[in-house]
Amino acid sequence: MGRMVKALAVTLRAAQAAHSLSRGVPTRFASTMDKGTNFFFRQLFDTVSSTYTYIVGDPATREAVLIDPVLEHAQRDAALLSELGYKLLYAMNTHMHADHVTGTGQLKSLLPGTKSVIGANSGAQADVHLQDGTTLSVGSLRLLSVATPGHTNGCLTYILHEQGIAFTGDTLLIRGCGRTDFQEGSSETLYKSVHERIFTLPDHYTLYPAHDYKGQTATTVGEEKKYNPRLTKSLDEFVKIMDNLNLPYPKMIDKAIPANRVCGIY
Amino acid sequence: MGRMVKALAVTLRAAQAAHSLSRGVPTRFASTMDKGTNFFFRQLFDTVSSTYTYIVGDPATREAVLIDPVLEHAQRDAALLSELGYKLLYAMNTHMHADHVTGTGQLKSLLPGTKSVIGANSGAQADVHLQDGTTLSVGSLRLLSVATPGHTNGCLTYILHEQGIAFTGDTLLIRGCGRTDFQEGSSETLYKSVHERIFTLPDHYTLYPAHDYKGQTATTVGEEKKYNPRLTKSLDEFVKIMDNLNLPYPKMIDKAIPANRVCGIY
Repeated sequence: MGRMVKALAVTLRAAQAAHSLSRGVPTRFASTMDKGTNFFFRQLFDTVSSTYTYIVGDPATREAVLIDPVLEHAQRDAALLSELGYKLLYAMNTHMHADHVTGTGQLKSLLPGTKSVIGANSGAQADVHLQDGTTLSVGSLRLLSVATPGHTNGCLTYILHEQGIAFTGDTLLIRGCGRTDFQEGSSETLYKSVHERIFTLPDHYTLYPAHDYKGQTATTVGEEKKYNPRLTKSLDEFVKIMDNLNLPYPKMIDKAIPANRVCGIY
Repeated sequence: MGRMVKALAVTLRAAQAAHSLSRGVPTRFASTMDKGTNFFFRQLFDTVSSTYTYIVGDPATREAVLIDPVLEHAQRDAALLSELGYKLLYAMNTHMHADHVTGTGQLKSLLPGTKSVIGANSGAQADVHLQDGTTLSVGSLRLLSVATPGHTNGCLTYILHEQGIAFTGDTLLIRGCGRTDFQEGSSETLYKSVHERIFTLPDHYTLYPAHDYKGQTATTVGEEKKYNPRLTKSLDEFVKIMDNLNLPYPKMIDKAIPANRVCGIY
């Protein structure tokens, strides 16, 4: 019975959304990804560090968050939010980055009232420290923080269950994953995080990473479970792969980590 | 009465979609932009020429098109389509590019049965030549070709009215537009194309350009009508702006145009 009521509620909500669309009453500026009328989404890119920044907002309340903003683009991102008519509630990071300086501190200056946000286990200063299981509200949107350590101890994946999307930071990349050979990196821990916290999401969930280096913009849980060349392997094989990447010392790390410990503002 | 029937049909379709979602029966791999269950979309990027390539497909029939593929990524795009389980019907271009070599010819080799597609006024060879007003069917999807000359004579904008999106090629870029100082460029013609064929679409339509150089991935009709720094000006001012850009000679043009005249394959 409860199930029927729930199904009916879903049907009605969908019907209302369809009705609203059929009347040609878009929200002020529609989303690039239109999951119903209560969700604004936009993906932005930094070509220097290949970092993706995301705007997620509620078109009804005009409140938004920025995920993984880059210092050099704080002005671009603030201007876009202003053009779109969104108030920035939270400038948040999935983790303390080693490859670029965060824009959160700068965004707090540009858009007063903005709160900086990061995982409690990150070791970085911020206005809000998130724990595993914390939910942030942005209008009607619910961003669930899920601890996915391995690249760093403080890595969080932000999940919007209603929209079926997750921001995986450097934990899971498209057909790849973050490095585990610096900061508090641990390939065993990363493998466990991906398999227990991300691969357990429904196959159709869209995943947005913090980086991509091959011109890919998004993936899904189903794709990565099937085609990720590293994380489809056994734990032992994965650890071996990660141990033998022989990657160069991250060129930005000595500047980025101290800066990111204080939201990018010395 | 007809209106009521239409509204009911929309409601039922939405209810069916919601029901399908509520049962947790996603299409094989869901879209990165989930406009109902009958639409697959993915954006891809070439960092060298800053070109966007798009996959649009019908998850029910597993048929897809590629818009503006880049030669150097033909292998990436073919592999992704294969992983996703899509058959490539059409490898299409919005116009004859001057800044990169198209991947359509290479994709025809990699994925036999694929047809190359371009505007009839482009001057380029292809299996299918589109006129203003031609509709291509891809499963249940309908891609309408709209002539938007100005950057070149053969420029087309591909519109999916049901999904509320348009692929504008180099005619309209995010807060910008294509050059009009080479090939058959005409700033008057481009201005007219944008104002008569793109700005007349509903404000909430999402626009996907062939390029972006500032890390932006998408825009909307409403945003460009309000914030495009060039196309919000009068025709006279626009022509003056375009006459005074003083841009360098396109470095790829002497290689790209002859190659693109024959689908990228000499």
